[in-house]
Amino acid sequence: MEVTRTLARFVIEHDARTVPDNVRHEAARSFLNWVGCAVGACRHETVERALAALKPFSGAAQATVLGRGDRLDVMTAALMNGITSHTFDFDDTHLKTVIHPSGPVASAILALAERTPVGGADFLHAFILGVEVECRIGSAVYPEHYDVGWHITGTAGVFGAAAAAGRLLKLDEQQMVWALGIAATQASGLREMFGTMCKPFHPGNAARNGLLAALLAQRDFTSSHQAIEAKRGFANVLSTAFKPQEITQRLGETWEIAQNTYKPFACGIVIHPIIDACIQLRNAHGLEAGDIEAIEARVHPLVLELTGKKTPQVGLEGKFSVYHSAAVAIIHGAAGEAEYGDDVVRDPQVTALRDRVSATVDKSMHEDQTRVTIRLKSGKAVETFVEHAIGSLKRPMSDGDLEAKFRALAKGTLGDSQSDRLIRLCWDVGKLDDAGEVARASVPRQS
Amino acid sequence: MEVTRTLARFVIEHDARTVPDNVRHEAARSFLNWVGCAVGACRHETVERALAALKPFSGAAQATVLGRGDRLDVMTAALMNGITSHTFDFDDTHLKTVIHPSGPVASAILALAERTPVGGADFLHAFILGVEVECRIGSAVYPEHYDVGWHITGTAGVFGAAAAAGRLLKLDEQQMVWALGIAATQASGLREMFGTMCKPFHPGNAARNGLLAALLAQRDFTSSHQAIEAKRGFANVLSTAFKPQEITQRLGETWEIAQNTYKPFACGIVIHPIIDACIQLRNAHGLEAGDIEAIEARVHPLVLELTGKKTPQVGLEGKFSVYHSAAVAIIHGAAGEAEYGDDVVRDPQVTALRDRVSATVDKSMHEDQTRVTIRLKSGKAVETFVEHAIGSLKRPMSDGDLEAKFRALAKGTLGDSQSDRLIRLCWDVGKLDDAGEVARASVPRQS
Repeated sequence: MEVTRTLARFVIEHDARTVPDNVRHEAARSFLNWVGCAVGACRHETVERALAALKPFSGAAQATVLGRGDRLDVMTAALMNGITSHTFDFDDTHLKTVIHPSGPVASAILALAERTPVGGADFLHAFILGVEVECRIGSAVYPEHYDVGWHITGTAGVFGAAAAAGRLLKLDEQQMVWALGIAATQASGLREMFGTMCKPFHPGNAARNGLLAALLAQRDFTSSHQAIEAKRGFANVLSTAFKPQEITQRLGETWEIAQNTYKPFACGIVIHPIIDACIQLRNAHGLEAGDIEAIEARVHPLVLELTGKKTPQVGLEGKFSVYHSAAVAIIHGAAGEAEYGDDVVRDPQVTALRDRVSATVDKSMHEDQTRVTIRLKSGKAVETFVEHAIGSLKRPMSDGDLEAKFRALAKGTLGDSQSDRLIRLCWDVGKLDDAGEVARASVPRQS
Repeated sequence: MEVTRTLARFVIEHDARTVPDNVRHEAARSFLNWVGCAVGACRHETVERALAALKPFSGAAQATVLGRGDRLDVMTAALMNGITSHTFDFDDTHLKTVIHPSGPVASAILALAERTPVGGADFLHAFILGVEVECRIGSAVYPEHYDVGWHITGTAGVFGAAAAAGRLLKLDEQQMVWALGIAATQASGLREMFGTMCKPFHPGNAARNGLLAALLAQRDFTSSHQAIEAKRGFANVLSTAFKPQEITQRLGETWEIAQNTYKPFACGIVIHPIIDACIQLRNAHGLEAGDIEAIEARVHPLVLELTGKKTPQVGLEGKFSVYHSAAVAIIHGAAGEAEYGDDVVRDPQVTALRDRVSATVDKSMHEDQTRVTIRLKSGKAVETFVEHAIGSLKRPMSDGDLEAKFRALAKGTLGDSQSDRLIRLCWDVGKLDDAGEVARASVPRQS
């Protein structure tokens, strides 16, 4: 079975007109969410440090660092945008593989599109194909590959970036085979890096290296012809199991991007049902912190295992605290990046309510469920049960939710009207004459 | 046991004055051999294709592609020189780990030294430390890591490049820990790529990515503190066995570069004893092809397994033919890159003699042994036994041999006097005011 060649042929031959409308719309949703995450984090310390290191070596001003005035060569811009878009860990998730699919692919091709202008329809099609490639390769080795210790967004992402960039560069079949091979031999990224700046470095590196793979292949730089499936190829070396049919079956009939999800809350996904329940109760009953005696949640065991931090001191720790998260859900009605600021974590109103939150493991709950009871000082109690959290595949964020998330992220970088214009460009990316316009429109106007 | 931190501390604290003279001399030998290999391959198709792909994205003209006029930014130059120096597969070998140690390390720091001038003594010291780091990390996971399918020159090389570059950048201990971590999370390169242009891409990529790791760490870009030894760190994820003491024991007392070896012949190491035997017999008895009835070699089983190609058609196939190799050893008294040209492989005089060569497996032979009998048309026979091939640790190439190898490689790129000057600069690299002079001296003078 020629897995690598089958995939290469699919990427170069696929006809954009056969992509269903719902898939194209989901791609635009993914793209909008990705741009918002990148703009939101563009002044983060992680980004400032990487940019300071890289700028002295950058080539010509070919492409934009989203949300900033800096223009770098295509490969360096791809690296930077991959970093910014994953810095808040607030980007999209392909739940079947836990890949964050947009970062490696969009970072690579948006930078490329600023150098050689490309129509929005081709751009969106390449994006969909890139996500298809990385998620299928990921599916073929997940969960064993992840269990070994690989950060799958980096290791599978490099293939997605290579495929999407290669499609825009109009590689022929042999060149696309080589591009996937050059990507395979750069696959990297360890889970040991979680909690450090290297985590967002991984999708950035996947974007940069995937782009390099496509550019080398375009010049007939050779590689293996069976890089994915060979005895010493990607799957066998980086995983203990391999399901090649996940790559080759029903290509062009099903679309992985249709399974993409977006986080409404800027924290680990296991807390999302509790935040969702608290916001629902708050809004339904007009609750304020002062009314509340106690918040009691019955939760899946992973919630306490991963997010049991009782007294977080800084914002990043707040993301690993179910207690802080429930408190801000009541007080602010939200749990975006702003609600995990250092100042919010130390706010006396928040810490006072946080101390009245309890979470009890209930083994009858699946990961997406919770039952939350809020006891009021009045003696009354209100309660709700969440079957699937908002943001899950079963209860996806609406287009309006995604826009609101975008605006909250862009605030502080872009004015309202510029933010609105950028949102419109993201929705319409498939119709633009020049997809690179999105990148340039993300730069704050001098005022 | 803090493996990563122990290694980081060693690299930043080590005192150059404690390096023994023989180690410093071996480093100069390694460096000379590395420069020769890079200059020799600088116009190879592999290099031309990579350069065409990369040049449009390169930054300022900071560093030299060895043997060429092209000047690129430091990271791209490091990538290119790593590629050129391994293109002929003629560079150095640390036999204990089969790492080609100079490529990743020298490529990274010579490029860096052209941007920020550095004295030769510091340069050579950083080179020795980088080789120490990569070979010790390699030793800690070899052979299991290699058996899994990793090209260890790429995966271990990135650490060596990061360490050496970090030393020149004067990183502090915490930054060096991060640099090794950022290197670890980029470790990549599959053995599946052998026989394609991606093989020399690996040391180039290790140089580029190791340099990036050091540059990011210099800006306090954070990473794991236990990147090598952690449960989901380098050793456990990329190997099935880990011997941490290979990294930490006797640091600064033994030197891995003292175990480095150089290939006298531009082909797989298993044929070297046969070529050596043939050249010895040729020179001792003044043999010419026309005198010879038959060449009979008794060999280790690997010789026929790896190099049993009876009728090679192109140069690269010649490198996998013990028959071609024995024939050129008699006819040309050498088996350098020139003797594996397409024209030589098709030369009727060579093919006629090649067909009179036979190799028989003799299980009593170890890998470095052979017994060669040459039967002459006169009815006489001459014979020799090789215990260790020239180029092995037991029979190292002399300084004069290395110079002759260098001249043969540089021929076609540099004139004799320029070649001589470059050789002198390599020998004296540890005494130069500015180590980058070596790179600039490798560029052919306009005539």
